[in-house]
Amino acid sequence: MTTQQRAEETRERILAAAEECFARQGYDATGVAEICERAGVSKGAFFYHFPTKQAVFLELLGRWLEGLEQQLNLMRAQVSSVPEALLQMAGVAQQVFGMARERLFIFLEFLNKAARDPQIWEATITPYRRYREFFARMMETGIAEGSLRLVDPEVAANAILSLAIGLVLQAAMDPDGTDWGVTVRQSVQMFVAGIRRMESASPEGAWQ
Amino acid sequence: MTTQQRAEETRERILAAAEECFARQGYDATGVAEICERAGVSKGAFFYHFPTKQAVFLELLGRWLEGLEQQLNLMRAQVSSVPEALLQMAGVAQQVFGMARERLFIFLEFLNKAARDPQIWEATITPYRRYREFFARMMETGIAEGSLRLVDPEVAANAILSLAIGLVLQAAMDPDGTDWGVTVRQSVQMFVAGIRRMESASPEGAWQ
Repeated sequence: MTTQQRAEETRERILAAAEECFARQGYDATGVAEICERAGVSKGAFFYHFPTKQAVFLELLGRWLEGLEQQLNLMRAQVSSVPEALLQMAGVAQQVFGMARERLFIFLEFLNKAARDPQIWEATITPYRRYREFFARMMETGIAEGSLRLVDPEVAANAILSLAIGLVLQAAMDPDGTDWGVTVRQSVQMFVAGIRRMESASPEGAWQ
Repeated sequence: MTTQQRAEETRERILAAAEECFARQGYDATGVAEICERAGVSKGAFFYHFPTKQAVFLELLGRWLEGLEQQLNLMRAQVSSVPEALLQMAGVAQQVFGMARERLFIFLEFLNKAARDPQIWEATITPYRRYREFFARMMETGIAEGSLRLVDPEVAANAILSLAIGLVLQAAMDPDGTDWGVTVRQSVQMFVAGIRRMESASPEGAWQ
């Protein structure tokens, strides 16, 4: 194993240990010493890779969201029209939700701490802004391809993101309250019906 | 002042002091001793009114949400059709948001702690279930009056609640990210367009 491989491996061990600790007892109650113990690394090694516990969290957050973004990009690429892509994204939301619950609670705890520090705050909401951009570009494409009404792309993107955030939160708060898979699919269907171009005004495909 | 009035007044002072402390430094970092000091009451008086700090928070939460519910009920009563009522609710959302930011952060912190205690969890999400009921009954009314399509009332209620929760969270996370007043109004318009009965199929008022 080269020095670089060993460093990579240590870094991964720290991240995995931190995620386990955060999930088990929360972000705040987890100390660097505990992460080091679980990862089997020295404090020196920890601080070689990460300046703070916060930095570990932000890296974990970045990874969680990157994985989701890749999935979304893949779906966007595979499906012909924007409304269909949105409906397909809703269809796989359920599997995201299952993973999201634990992480969501850690995220909420962190968010709450970050609220008191402008710099950490910026770092925390940067990935969120990327999602907003992603959906805004999708809306523009939908308008251009004639599948969506002439809505404000930024507003529609914020609305979709709100729907998604709200559904994730509700599902996490009240997992047995309803069938969240069905709820997500139908909620997105309702919203898409509100922004797609009416078939009577312009039948699907008429713009191609 | 009667004994009962004095007790009432003490109770209110404790609640007001707790809200100030929670807002300034967070829920977790606030101790009962501090609330007592700020309220100018003894620990004995505190524990006469509230068994725990949690109980104070749950009462505050209940009051915040009750105020909002009264506003919603009022609007519902004043407006003729369900789609119009929803659009009107979106119109006043902005003033709710201004107040909501501070409280939201306290709520998120509390939620995070509550996640580890099933009993507190139940108490925390009870008001949320009431909102769900409120919107589900509105959807049923809308379907019955012919202003809404035959959507699943529970799903539509969850979708509206998700939209609202997501918008509040986004506005709190990124207050300067966009004009949230406009975004809320237009987001609700988009969603309502997706669940209202098409005018071509049944012109508004045709069912009355």
